[in-house]
Amino acid sequence: MNKVYIAGIGQTPVSESWEKSLKELAGDAGLIAMEDAGIGYPDALFVGNMMAITANRQAQLATLMADWLGFHHKPAISIETACSSGSAAFRMALMAIASGELESALVIGAEKMTDSPGSEITASLATAADAELEADFGLSFVGLNALLMRRYMHEYGWSHADFANFSINAHANAVHNPNARFRKAISKDTFTKSPMISDPINLMDASPVSDGAAAIVLSARPIQTEGKNISVIASAAMTDTLSLQNRQNTIKLNAAETSARAVYAQAGLSPSDMGLFEYHDAFSIMAALSLEAAGFCEPGQGPRLAIDDKIKYDGDIPVATMGGLKARGHPVGATGIYQLVEATLQLQGRAGPTQVKRNKYALTQNIGGSGSNIITHILQSE
Amino acid sequence: MNKVYIAGIGQTPVSESWEKSLKELAGDAGLIAMEDAGIGYPDALFVGNMMAITANRQAQLATLMADWLGFHHKPAISIETACSSGSAAFRMALMAIASGELESALVIGAEKMTDSPGSEITASLATAADAELEADFGLSFVGLNALLMRRYMHEYGWSHADFANFSINAHANAVHNPNARFRKAISKDTFTKSPMISDPINLMDASPVSDGAAAIVLSARPIQTEGKNISVIASAAMTDTLSLQNRQNTIKLNAAETSARAVYAQAGLSPSDMGLFEYHDAFSIMAALSLEAAGFCEPGQGPRLAIDDKIKYDGDIPVATMGGLKARGHPVGATGIYQLVEATLQLQGRAGPTQVKRNKYALTQNIGGSGSNIITHILQSE
Repeated sequence: MNKVYIAGIGQTPVSESWEKSLKELAGDAGLIAMEDAGIGYPDALFVGNMMAITANRQAQLATLMADWLGFHHKPAISIETACSSGSAAFRMALMAIASGELESALVIGAEKMTDSPGSEITASLATAADAELEADFGLSFVGLNALLMRRYMHEYGWSHADFANFSINAHANAVHNPNARFRKAISKDTFTKSPMISDPINLMDASPVSDGAAAIVLSARPIQTEGKNISVIASAAMTDTLSLQNRQNTIKLNAAETSARAVYAQAGLSPSDMGLFEYHDAFSIMAALSLEAAGFCEPGQGPRLAIDDKIKYDGDIPVATMGGLKARGHPVGATGIYQLVEATLQLQGRAGPTQVKRNKYALTQNIGGSGSNIITHILQSE
Repeated sequence: MNKVYIAGIGQTPVSESWEKSLKELAGDAGLIAMEDAGIGYPDALFVGNMMAITANRQAQLATLMADWLGFHHKPAISIETACSSGSAAFRMALMAIASGELESALVIGAEKMTDSPGSEITASLATAADAELEADFGLSFVGLNALLMRRYMHEYGWSHADFANFSINAHANAVHNPNARFRKAISKDTFTKSPMISDPINLMDASPVSDGAAAIVLSARPIQTEGKNISVIASAAMTDTLSLQNRQNTIKLNAAETSARAVYAQAGLSPSDMGLFEYHDAFSIMAALSLEAAGFCEPGQGPRLAIDDKIKYDGDIPVATMGGLKARGHPVGATGIYQLVEATLQLQGRAGPTQVKRNKYALTQNIGGSGSNIITHILQSE
């Protein structure tokens, strides 16, 4: 697949938005990205979103956004792979450009989750699990992750407190990100004493239900922007069984591993070449499993990287450099685009106080379901 | 964009399915198409579906289908543009293959609508309209089409009975299609005396809420099949305003016209070259507007083609040759793939008693919303 360039980026602050609708959030992010790119209207619009049809009673969100943004008589398409919908839309746009059908595309990831009662959002999130084998038995999404975390702690002998630095690091980085939801550092004490949600997952293990939108303009050609030109040099999507019970090993993210291996092979690079890893820390157990699957440590050793402070912005493998899902927030369909926007800012040297030192290559990985649909990209600064 | 080939097709009978779930219907169609293609597992799975998250409480349907069909560790993605989701998924797969990223892909269109109470399905269908400007005021989808039809009748002086042949033709053709929902011919009397749903739309103007799945294997290379090799030589998607009230002329399908013009230009062909037109006759008014937008007659003259029997399988421009949405049925996210499967059968000369005579080129057009997201293809037999 031909190289594709990031021509512009945009994001709204992640929040509980009482003043802007889904349409307005997505529109704001799209307009900022289009202004950043400065190439007028791209050839098509791709929207990553998971639950507009339930949370906002709106299907074909892409058509609405094309209408709202003035893309009349251009193609617009909505893409959905649960919590990896943003990266899935990004990957579809890459392929459409690489096919020669489009010269450029706007990709928006958007989700507005806080308009519905909590119980409805919990039910909507549970649709990312297998309806017949998991959700119909009352398993919520946090419940599934609690099962994973408990099994992982049992298997490798970690305590709950051993996961503290994943969240502490995320919150410390979010302090400096004006678009993060929780710009407040937390202590180890805060982490360990937080209210339990689904044992062993407590409030500080979990990313927050949030509203937000982020956007990227992609182009077949490099475009002069404020910072450096950033290109997408590798893209891979992989699936695993939808239900956890069908996996031989539940505490290994198989699709994360195969998609990470695929992008390393495409780019001719290895984990040690990555200057940062924007991972999918929806829960602290996912942070550990992601580091392992992407090849930064052996299975079962994810928490060690956190305990040893290797994951800080000035460490060996910086993660969640602008707050991650935990502290920037996790508006599900938008998250993949936030990750790619943040990686772009890092590679352009525009990441502020948490700027990483090695900013030639960035790895991003977006996880749909309990590791069932995983999309991985490598970006490069030129 | 490079030419892409249809390597295999599959479909389940459209029905009110009490014995098979959404997963089983989609799986059956996929397996039939894969067996027809005979190339083992394609490189990726694309699923077109509108409402699994509401009607079946299942998000990321593509991941579930990859799991169910044994596509583990291959990419799978769900595509949604309301009632044109099937064709949108097909178009995404075309671009992914043309990009060189994939050699082949399985595209499934699937919808299971009859598990929910009618009021819930009416509400789910209404999400294809603009939530803020239309659905929130109580406008159902049939209500929107009733407004269109009333305006059209007023503007051009047609009576309700003038639309009869659209439905009579669809039902006459469906008699010979083993996969059609209503294999029963209807008379003009049946049409005019059917119960009113939303004035002037009566039961025989409207396509039925249905369950069904259809599938196509696409390949970068021609593959020897039972019939001729069929290729996709043109593909275009266009959007219009989501709400009717924002259009200058509500009784013209702008996006249908621009996407039809785009495919004619891509293929170097004109309407008169088309041997059949699988159009989106969700309501009889849509049949008339589609014929006009695709260039088969002047604005306002769609009903004339029906009255003059030009639309029969042996007429100048055969439509709904296997029953169309009206009589084959309209499982919304599946419909676009049914249209493409039926066009393929016609071009291969395998369409049975309603086989068209000129079977070199077929036009298919799939409409999302009230003409808001429209996807058009031209297939060619080689």
